[in-house]
Amino acid sequence: MSDGLRVGMLGCGTVGAAVIRMLHEHAGEIERRAGTHVAVVRVAVRDPDRQRDVPLDPSLLVKEPDEIVSAPDVDVVVEVIGGIEPARSLILAAMAAGKSVVTANKALLADHGPELFDEAVRRGVDLLYEAAVGGGIPVIRPIREHLAGDRIVRLTGILNGTTNYILTRMTEDGSSLEDAVREAQALGYAEADPSADVEGSDAAAKAAILATIAFDTPVAAKDVSREGITAVTADDIAFAKRLGYVVKLLAVAERVGDSVSVRVHPAMIPTSHPLAAVRDAFNAVLIDGERVGPLMLYGRGAGGDPTATSVVGDLIELARGRAAAGTITTAAHAAHGESVRSLLPVDDVLGEFYLLLDVADRPGVLAAIAHAFAHHQISIKQVWQEGHGDEARLVIITHVAQERTLRECARTLESLDSVKAIRSIIRVEAGEG
Amino acid sequence: MSDGLRVGMLGCGTVGAAVIRMLHEHAGEIERRAGTHVAVVRVAVRDPDRQRDVPLDPSLLVKEPDEIVSAPDVDVVVEVIGGIEPARSLILAAMAAGKSVVTANKALLADHGPELFDEAVRRGVDLLYEAAVGGGIPVIRPIREHLAGDRIVRLTGILNGTTNYILTRMTEDGSSLEDAVREAQALGYAEADPSADVEGSDAAAKAAILATIAFDTPVAAKDVSREGITAVTADDIAFAKRLGYVVKLLAVAERVGDSVSVRVHPAMIPTSHPLAAVRDAFNAVLIDGERVGPLMLYGRGAGGDPTATSVVGDLIELARGRAAAGTITTAAHAAHGESVRSLLPVDDVLGEFYLLLDVADRPGVLAAIAHAFAHHQISIKQVWQEGHGDEARLVIITHVAQERTLRECARTLESLDSVKAIRSIIRVEAGEG
Repeated sequence: MSDGLRVGMLGCGTVGAAVIRMLHEHAGEIERRAGTHVAVVRVAVRDPDRQRDVPLDPSLLVKEPDEIVSAPDVDVVVEVIGGIEPARSLILAAMAAGKSVVTANKALLADHGPELFDEAVRRGVDLLYEAAVGGGIPVIRPIREHLAGDRIVRLTGILNGTTNYILTRMTEDGSSLEDAVREAQALGYAEADPSADVEGSDAAAKAAILATIAFDTPVAAKDVSREGITAVTADDIAFAKRLGYVVKLLAVAERVGDSVSVRVHPAMIPTSHPLAAVRDAFNAVLIDGERVGPLMLYGRGAGGDPTATSVVGDLIELARGRAAAGTITTAAHAAHGESVRSLLPVDDVLGEFYLLLDVADRPGVLAAIAHAFAHHQISIKQVWQEGHGDEARLVIITHVAQERTLRECARTLESLDSVKAIRSIIRVEAGEG
Repeated sequence: MSDGLRVGMLGCGTVGAAVIRMLHEHAGEIERRAGTHVAVVRVAVRDPDRQRDVPLDPSLLVKEPDEIVSAPDVDVVVEVIGGIEPARSLILAAMAAGKSVVTANKALLADHGPELFDEAVRRGVDLLYEAAVGGGIPVIRPIREHLAGDRIVRLTGILNGTTNYILTRMTEDGSSLEDAVREAQALGYAEADPSADVEGSDAAAKAAILATIAFDTPVAAKDVSREGITAVTADDIAFAKRLGYVVKLLAVAERVGDSVSVRVHPAMIPTSHPLAAVRDAFNAVLIDGERVGPLMLYGRGAGGDPTATSVVGDLIELARGRAAAGTITTAAHAAHGESVRSLLPVDDVLGEFYLLLDVADRPGVLAAIAHAFAHHQISIKQVWQEGHGDEARLVIITHVAQERTLRECARTLESLDSVKAIRSIIRVEAGEG
């Protein structure tokens, strides 16, 4: 181990550069804690000649990623290029060459996780990915290791910082969705095309990864029922506030009998809920364990430095395993156990619902609407009517109902003369997680 | 490894019984995740003949703890008897016999940590203690492993659930300290003698353990500057609320130049602070890392099942290490590095302060008081006066001042004719951690 842990990097964007800086600037502490020196020995980039603000000998920059995944003097490959290809092929090639891999690539893990983990087991190498969910927040390791003896009942997460920033602006400043998106773009929180964030697919990929490890059940991004924040209006936010709620884009993964439900959707949560205090671009995961009770992990879910912290934590874990045993010790990370569960269709999920309706303001309207709910066996918890004449609006919060039944009830409501339009339907989280 | 990991337990109280139940009831998941069977093979208890509600063959109960620490068929010893002796001697004996140890004993680690960790290194065994701080919350492992590449700047924790419950009742119900203590006792949160909780020594032991690992610097419980909640009054809580703060018993460990300050004291924190939402008997640790930014870990800080989750997590880590390498792999846990820092006297600590004064209500009083602050070079941030005549009270919140200077200023105030009494001095946390 006199050479220490020799790291080859694929990519040198925001996260990659932050990893290089951290390994350089904290070299002393990292060597002491890892039990060995951890050094970047080669970095594959598209343009090796470009000037970069990283403390790295430019001769270590190469154009061909194959020079890294197959190099005999590279022990571990860090993949921070993102996307599916060539990331997937390069990771497979690195593992075939006996190298462990650290990745921050949530999309790849959510779509091709089983293939990659199976290959890691076959090759006897590690595939670590703490940075793929929650940026700098320790999430993967607490679920896999700290809670290994407990049974997780439910995970509720705010896993996308961009949408949380947007919803925070709408809540605290009364901004419209469009203005809040523009503000997030100006601050660099949102891309020019914000669709992966606002339509929930980034959060869905992360939810798939968390559900997979929490329930020992392979869940891919496409298995996650997904609804973004594009339909959330300033009115919904205002009514939520009036009723003691705040609107968040939640990722939920829960055990329901022998099945697992995994979904991403906006939800109203009580202001006293631990996730309600997660503001701006912060992320958090609330874990309900059978024994441990509620556990919340909160921090920066994105950004170069926070994400690099997670990557370097994984590298130190690998270095410690090698230093102690002369070989990599944690290959059991894949292991989809025997407890594989079926996925519950979102139609079968139970929950409370908020509905905002445009209604006619005349006698008998509320009776007709209440009758429709009764007909579908849905109890009403709260009703709020305001305005009059053409401007009358009705807010209803239901007791627990099945999503399928709620949708059927909504169709009945739409067929009523007195209901002009259903403006919004948003799930409501009842308790403290 | 056909025998799996053979666990000998010292003690079978609330936590011990919960560990036995968890290992029994979750045996399948634990074996799959640990890579081997984990079984309790012997338990030392004071009275082996007493009836116990644990799924354990009564013949495994023994009276002599020595039968466990020296037994050739015990791989790992779990110490859940608490207190200093005989826990210390038994752990040393177990390590001398080549056994790794899992302990939940905060008092022992805070007072004798260096001796125990040095012995673990000498014997090549592990000493794991996730359960010693924060009950079921993963705290030790995130600091040691996840953040191993980062530099921790500050830890701010609510580490004692009993006092947090008491302060929550005072804040939310307007209870007096005495009534809130009685309520906590009735619920089993506080002991008949609540002094270890309300005087801050339980939190101080935990702060010492966290500071030790966060700053690679041995900190003992006696090194922690400590002030409990016994002097906090309903008036302080009410004024805090009016000014937008909530009173919490905080444990703070922070880097100040080349030194480390570790202290436990009541503090006013803004209601928007992440720790302000930590209610009832919950615990939380807010970690500020140079790269990772603020990170909060929140959950149940006590109780049999949550604490057992942490103990079992440690056992699974040990089992995995043995399964993979045929030997225990994580002996490097001790390692007080070269970065040992000096401890900053609490007098040198900077902070904002709240003062509640009984004053005479006559012309010139405020001028005299303001003059005293100016004389000690302390700026005033907020002033609030209420009542009149003999009932006049003055609330002052200062800008940042050194604790020593503030105490000197308080002595000056006490010498003024117009100041009848200084009723309270409480630290104020300015920002978001």
